[in-house]
Amino acid sequence: MTSSFHPPVRTLMGPGPSDVNPRILEALSRPTIGHLDPAFVGMMDELKELLQFAFQTKNALTLPVSAPGSAGMETAFANLLEQGDRVIVCQNGVFGGRMKENVERCGATAIMVEDDWGSAVDVDKVEQALSENPDVKALAFVHAETSTGARSDAETLCGLAQKYDCLSIVDAVTSLGGVELCVDNWGIDAIYSGTQKCLSCVPGLSPISFSDRAAEVIKSRKTKVQSWFLDLNLVMGYWGNDAKRSYHHTAPVNSLYALHESLVVLQEEGLENAWRRHAINHQAFAVGIEALGLSFVVAEEFRLPQLNAVGFPESVDDAGVRSALLNDYNLEIGAGLGSLAGKVWRIGLMGFASNKKNVFLCLSALANVLTNMNFAANGAKAIAAAEAIYSSD
Amino acid sequence: MTSSFHPPVRTLMGPGPSDVNPRILEALSRPTIGHLDPAFVGMMDELKELLQFAFQTKNALTLPVSAPGSAGMETAFANLLEQGDRVIVCQNGVFGGRMKENVERCGATAIMVEDDWGSAVDVDKVEQALSENPDVKALAFVHAETSTGARSDAETLCGLAQKYDCLSIVDAVTSLGGVELCVDNWGIDAIYSGTQKCLSCVPGLSPISFSDRAAEVIKSRKTKVQSWFLDLNLVMGYWGNDAKRSYHHTAPVNSLYALHESLVVLQEEGLENAWRRHAINHQAFAVGIEALGLSFVVAEEFRLPQLNAVGFPESVDDAGVRSALLNDYNLEIGAGLGSLAGKVWRIGLMGFASNKKNVFLCLSALANVLTNMNFAANGAKAIAAAEAIYSSD
Repeated sequence: MTSSFHPPVRTLMGPGPSDVNPRILEALSRPTIGHLDPAFVGMMDELKELLQFAFQTKNALTLPVSAPGSAGMETAFANLLEQGDRVIVCQNGVFGGRMKENVERCGATAIMVEDDWGSAVDVDKVEQALSENPDVKALAFVHAETSTGARSDAETLCGLAQKYDCLSIVDAVTSLGGVELCVDNWGIDAIYSGTQKCLSCVPGLSPISFSDRAAEVIKSRKTKVQSWFLDLNLVMGYWGNDAKRSYHHTAPVNSLYALHESLVVLQEEGLENAWRRHAINHQAFAVGIEALGLSFVVAEEFRLPQLNAVGFPESVDDAGVRSALLNDYNLEIGAGLGSLAGKVWRIGLMGFASNKKNVFLCLSALANVLTNMNFAANGAKAIAAAEAIYSSD
Repeated sequence: MTSSFHPPVRTLMGPGPSDVNPRILEALSRPTIGHLDPAFVGMMDELKELLQFAFQTKNALTLPVSAPGSAGMETAFANLLEQGDRVIVCQNGVFGGRMKENVERCGATAIMVEDDWGSAVDVDKVEQALSENPDVKALAFVHAETSTGARSDAETLCGLAQKYDCLSIVDAVTSLGGVELCVDNWGIDAIYSGTQKCLSCVPGLSPISFSDRAAEVIKSRKTKVQSWFLDLNLVMGYWGNDAKRSYHHTAPVNSLYALHESLVVLQEEGLENAWRRHAINHQAFAVGIEALGLSFVVAEEFRLPQLNAVGFPESVDDAGVRSALLNDYNLEIGAGLGSLAGKVWRIGLMGFASNKKNVFLCLSALANVLTNMNFAANGAKAIAAAEAIYSSD
């Protein structure tokens, strides 16, 4: 007989999931009700408004996809693209590559604009690609590259998409709630995110939003969306404003309670306050990391405060350090991904996990573990450097 | 400012979600850990074994899809089918129609075998279709039609698929855990289910299992699966036995805790005991319903114990009765779907909700509400009839 599973209590400072606020875990476990219950439908209305707030948009087509961020990505591409379409895809990490896969599986062609991992998307190269390919349907890029910790200039890139009259598709899985993001002001046409990053909700849902222009493209498709499950023309029968909430698939009721609560928490704090909190905790962490003798992969101006790609000397035992942090401190940090595997740690300060206690825990624990492994790291100096940032705030 | 959402406490006797065992809600809210945490990976191994137990299979390719049952359906079709394939699809309710949609969106052709809603799939018509179409790749049917409450003979139908050398694809969304289901003994090649029916877990995941023969078909595809998110060749890098659990998408960690707990509960009870419990509660409910002067849509031998499609006279106010049950008794029953809309109620006795208390609650509440609406229903007689079944058990 198998026993119940009782997870250890960790501090989650990897690339996501991040620590979940206990309020959100409690909301998750409230009694399940039906997905057509009037009380649930009322909650859905609030949830849409809360998502519009978080995305800073008035888009009517705003809802949570009933599956993780990768399904949100697929929702954007599968609904907007048809066979033969051409799309400019920017790649500066793992997730640009995943976008390319999605484009191709829709029978469309991806025109790649590539940048080094750890760099932001090069705006000039994108403008050149747009001017050379006047027939592209969309420009797709990752706002916050979870594999490298680099932030790209979404506002400028979406402005270019408008200038060249194509749609913009933005991956905001790691950015939503952690850094400035203004869907309407920046003219974003399609955006998707995840719940398990800066919203500090459990993983499993993907908030999405589409401009009226993008919604019109979806409504006037010549062919059916290849995915029945992700077909927004059907999903909106359930989530749409005018619709009579007709059944499409059974909504993940409890996960939606949790997302609702996470957005209530965000609303209580205020978006600007949340962005500022992520920024200050990052600054404190960054000076501490440098005081430990470690370095950042991403140039300062492009660094995401919520995800720190920290490089370490070749002599350091990558997996050994991560295991020691997990086993001795119940502290999870992330490994490098793709071409940065074995070269960096990805240390998240996302959502609920972006706080002073975690900054100090991680700096102290890293200092101890590295010192035990014969890489002299001055923990006291790191803590003092971080403390100085908080004091001057 | 939006407030936290506190759902009413309902008794869920619709077509799903069903009442969730409090043990499972508690498991759902345990602290989130990383999807690559060794403790989580250990839980995943147990979860696979528990799913193999529930499905009665040794299939290595057994796992929970990170999205609801509809995505499980799409996983089966999108992975097994390629452009130009032909599939026999049996339709005797809503979900056979959804299968057809899935087949066509894969660029394949659905050869329909249609039966009346409320009937089981006609085995003879299926054999005729198989003999007339020797080139079909698969036979697809719904084991337990959630829209009508009819059970089809999965064992015989899968035997036919084997006889005519094609794959069998079985929708077990509503059957798993509620009625006999033996994947290996019946020779099922591909099967998908949902968590929110007879497993009494929260909605949002879809357990699936594929035979070695089906797994081989997926491995040796000529073209890529059109969905990146549901591509089992990629998903198995994370869920596979031999794999190093490489990241594909972020697993819905907490929902998987809940599924694990729901299967531990099922294992503790025993499969045969769970099937027997569903059968006896259905029998008691059925005699009670008939004592109220209501009737069943499905002939007795094909009735699903976990989902009762109950017909009512035209004079009865369908929506009024359901609203009164919800508002006055916090009791949810389901409306008819598709061609049975306005003609039946779908009353579930699924998983944790399949118990004597719910049988009595529903019979008494229905009797009261109907009587208030001038349809004389003798509640005392219904309760006595149900009680007699329990007494003779």
